[in-house]
Amino acid sequence: MKKIIITLLALSAALSLSAQMREDFKPATTNQPGHQYPMVNSQRMVRAQISAPNAKSVKLDIGGVKYEMVKNSDGVWTGDSAPQDEGFHYYQLEIDGASVPDPGSLYYYGASRWGSGIDVPAADQDFYTLKNVPQGKVAEVYYYSSVTGSMRHCYIYTPAEYEQNPKKKYPVLYLQHGGGEDEHGWPQQGRTGIIMDNLIAAGKAVPFIIVMDNGSETYGPNNPRPERPAGGRPQGGAPQGGQRPQAGRGGNPFAGMDFVSAFQKILEQDLIPMVEANYRVYNDCQHRAMAGLSMGGMQTHSIALANPKLFSWIGILSGGVFSKEEVDATPGFRENNKLIFISFGSRELENRIGGAADPRPITEELGKTGMNTVFYVSPDTAHEWQSWRRALYNFAQKLFK
Amino acid sequence: MKKIIITLLALSAALSLSAQMREDFKPATTNQPGHQYPMVNSQRMVRAQISAPNAKSVKLDIGGVKYEMVKNSDGVWTGDSAPQDEGFHYYQLEIDGASVPDPGSLYYYGASRWGSGIDVPAADQDFYTLKNVPQGKVAEVYYYSSVTGSMRHCYIYTPAEYEQNPKKKYPVLYLQHGGGEDEHGWPQQGRTGIIMDNLIAAGKAVPFIIVMDNGSETYGPNNPRPERPAGGRPQGGAPQGGQRPQAGRGGNPFAGMDFVSAFQKILEQDLIPMVEANYRVYNDCQHRAMAGLSMGGMQTHSIALANPKLFSWIGILSGGVFSKEEVDATPGFRENNKLIFISFGSRELENRIGGAADPRPITEELGKTGMNTVFYVSPDTAHEWQSWRRALYNFAQKLFK
Repeated sequence: MKKIIITLLALSAALSLSAQMREDFKPATTNQPGHQYPMVNSQRMVRAQISAPNAKSVKLDIGGVKYEMVKNSDGVWTGDSAPQDEGFHYYQLEIDGASVPDPGSLYYYGASRWGSGIDVPAADQDFYTLKNVPQGKVAEVYYYSSVTGSMRHCYIYTPAEYEQNPKKKYPVLYLQHGGGEDEHGWPQQGRTGIIMDNLIAAGKAVPFIIVMDNGSETYGPNNPRPERPAGGRPQGGAPQGGQRPQAGRGGNPFAGMDFVSAFQKILEQDLIPMVEANYRVYNDCQHRAMAGLSMGGMQTHSIALANPKLFSWIGILSGGVFSKEEVDATPGFRENNKLIFISFGSRELENRIGGAADPRPITEELGKTGMNTVFYVSPDTAHEWQSWRRALYNFAQKLFK
Repeated sequence: MKKIIITLLALSAALSLSAQMREDFKPATTNQPGHQYPMVNSQRMVRAQISAPNAKSVKLDIGGVKYEMVKNSDGVWTGDSAPQDEGFHYYQLEIDGASVPDPGSLYYYGASRWGSGIDVPAADQDFYTLKNVPQGKVAEVYYYSSVTGSMRHCYIYTPAEYEQNPKKKYPVLYLQHGGGEDEHGWPQQGRTGIIMDNLIAAGKAVPFIIVMDNGSETYGPNNPRPERPAGGRPQGGAPQGGQRPQAGRGGNPFAGMDFVSAFQKILEQDLIPMVEANYRVYNDCQHRAMAGLSMGGMQTHSIALANPKLFSWIGILSGGVFSKEEVDATPGFRENNKLIFISFGSRELENRIGGAADPRPITEELGKTGMNTVFYVSPDTAHEWQSWRRALYNFAQKLFK
């Protein structure tokens, strides 16, 4: 009798779920060529599928939750997530305890690993959709760093008109990723080149160059990597899913603050000089911006205060604020600064951790002292890429004007 | 008694194997940042490792062979392959029947999927090793194609000196991937930018531009994709491991020869005009080369014969030959051509399928008629990337001289 009741309850729950779930799943735009799965429906639920005929358990691991998948008679497992926020999410599959990338998706670097990502359609996705407008380029560039004593790797966006104007000089934005991410974040999941080409084609942003470097990996023969604590990184262990890159995660970068000052030195001694020697750019702080998300925002904040003559335009995306007190305590900062842009996802503001101070009044207070401040909130998103795509879209329209 | 004998035999085999195997495994250069596995030893054996505590069977799938891995008490599986050829190999793991990427490796597009790859150290790896020499750029470029009616994606290499010589014009090589691969192949597993920067820095190649496009994906609104046969692609099925990209594989491209003529049209009407409008390049066939590997070599062969005024410099890498008869039957070919470069891996020549004609005497015969021919053989490699890296290294030294 008890068994029948449980069965009826389960059946009722299943019916209720299927009544609520819209069966309008479509392949994600972030799938590998020719792959149907993963899919997303109009409720922003993610459906994954994989052939694993001999597995006992397969789970879809997304947004910090592991969803059980179900096997059919062909050995193919299928499972659905709860609705996700609009925009980009890291995820993975768990097969009999092994956390692995989904063979159906394209791969992205975040949560300290190359792994699966999925783009959930958004009402405002037009601004980061590839269109037939004049196209800039995102170039992969290696350069030698005297600070690290090694070759480093970055991406540099140049606007479409750059090649057509052989005498024109351009301003430059140095744009940083978050913790557990690297220089691939902004060009790939951030869709930086596409956002900029669309903005420039619409006349909404002035053309500028964007340099995207690795702000976590600052080690080399001239700046040795700190020893890991014994047994620090589990061997063969994939990172846990659903981890969003967040300040404070990732071990090494926060072992000390050394990687921030190392990256400042790399900027001052290697990266900015390389860019200014190889591109037609202005070489004064009035034509230089720095911005970053999360950990990259904290780096931007530190570097802007440590050397206020480096960048006149500053963006902090889900990475803190500038207070009036900090600005007042930093000689030269106020005179050189043209813009302080602060942004968050709305869910970050709703769920401030441990009673953290509300960044909006802090920013407004700074604005009242005559600084040019902008406070932008991305609707219905959290500490995730959709917040940062939207922040870039808004920030870029204010820059160098 | 029988059991004891079997145990003794197994023990003896294991001892014999371990006696032969050198325990000098090191992390592969193609690993994800911070990952120790996969590893390679000095015998070019690959050792993979993954945590899969609840799995019944885990295999390392490389070079067409699946090697059983063994679980330890922590649920971590480890397994070794037989010795591999020097250079780059696609591989994957199989966990309870699911073929998935190894979370330890970087990912590459080949065998019609993004998946794991590993670079096995080679005696001659210096030529494709990143060095502190003047660095060119590999740029990601989108452009509109009138042939497909859609935006297309390619990579364009410009040499280090390109930005420093605002009036100098450059020749261009159009360089194509193989079947089951795409435009990522040459810049990533091919290490094209690094090979060229090292060659140019050593004075061994003249600086030129390289355009790497997608020669398989030629469909769009203006050139609809052929219908797949019903049930053609299994859902959720990952490609089988060990498949090397090879002419004839991959279904669609060989449904007809349409993709070859479509790619020729894209070259003539969209790609070459886009490059010549946006880069400082010569616009005559004497300064244009085309080369490709495997399927891309067959495309190069077809396009060179269909339009002998398009490219004066031709490279066919593991993708066939030009015969005297073909050249004689193609008006204008002989007059316009400056070089026919033919290459193979030595194992391809040793193992010619179905008594295929030896390409060396065919090439030598053509050379005797006054054509500039080069026949290059990569030692101890097969139909794989090490053959093509070496071919590019040799071909580039002959180009535009």
